[in-house]
Amino acid sequence: MRGVDLRRLDSATCSVARAVDVVGQPWVLLVLREAFHGLRRFSDMQDHLGVSRSVLASRLEAMVQEGLLERSPYREPGQRERTEYVLTDKGRDLYPVIVALRQWGDRHLAGEAGVPIHSEHAGCGAAVHAELVCEAGHVVDSGDVVRRPGPGSRLRDAVAG
Amino acid sequence: MRGVDLRRLDSATCSVARAVDVVGQPWVLLVLREAFHGLRRFSDMQDHLGVSRSVLASRLEAMVQEGLLERSPYREPGQRERTEYVLTDKGRDLYPVIVALRQWGDRHLAGEAGVPIHSEHAGCGAAVHAELVCEAGHVVDSGDVVRRPGPGSRLRDAVAG
Repeated sequence: MRGVDLRRLDSATCSVARAVDVVGQPWVLLVLREAFHGLRRFSDMQDHLGVSRSVLASRLEAMVQEGLLERSPYREPGQRERTEYVLTDKGRDLYPVIVALRQWGDRHLAGEAGVPIHSEHAGCGAAVHAELVCEAGHVVDSGDVVRRPGPGSRLRDAVAG
Repeated sequence: MRGVDLRRLDSATCSVARAVDVVGQPWVLLVLREAFHGLRRFSDMQDHLGVSRSVLASRLEAMVQEGLLERSPYREPGQRERTEYVLTDKGRDLYPVIVALRQWGDRHLAGEAGVPIHSEHAGCGAAVHAELVCEAGHVVDSGDVVRRPGPGSRLRDAVAG
């Protein structure tokens, strides 16, 4: 398959398309943002996202089904048991997507008011950003990437035929 | 504003929310993927995305309006002038988002068939991925990020009041 025209590959097997299937709805990314900000409780998320109980409940249920969040019981003194929503490893692995969206928003949409939130490395206080690097340690520009089919690719002709 | 509870910040001024407003529709990310794969022509995109002419036309128009793509005329020998859709700098700056989505899909959704497409550094052939780094050069884990309000943040109380 080396050297094949990438346009002949079946789009549906593309990891970007699969990822977009799971996280491509705007609300998924916003709930993830809340989770990365440390929100775990239904009432906090509802308050911050400004959606109805039923809408948030169905969205959180969908994200639990997708394995992005998991339910965890907690109990405040003197209260009944409640449920927190905690990022799974699969959910946590989406953090680079959120950071990449944030830095794009900071660069292109923040306007004169400036950056709304600074993200800093807890260890040293320096600003955090998402960067493309290769395994040899080079910082990579979008124009310096070549793509070739991997083992999981399918030719569109093979799918259609 | 240092030390303020991030939950008190107005979500609408968040760069993630603003970015999601622009690119949070699944089709925007898929058209961007095609553009990063080198597709510029309406007919190639339509063929690859499998959408109708009118749907693709309105999506491309929306992305031109948002400044992610720009129109550029071209003419094949003996044919009438046509329009290509070319990434702007603003569009090209979304590449880390696409790469971060791709690597998440590769890791969590590729299944037994394996990775559909390898992305490699043109300079050295090593695999490319998105990584969180700080300006001091440390690789940063999602748990090692602290957030504090920047100049463009707003308190929710201030907005409501």
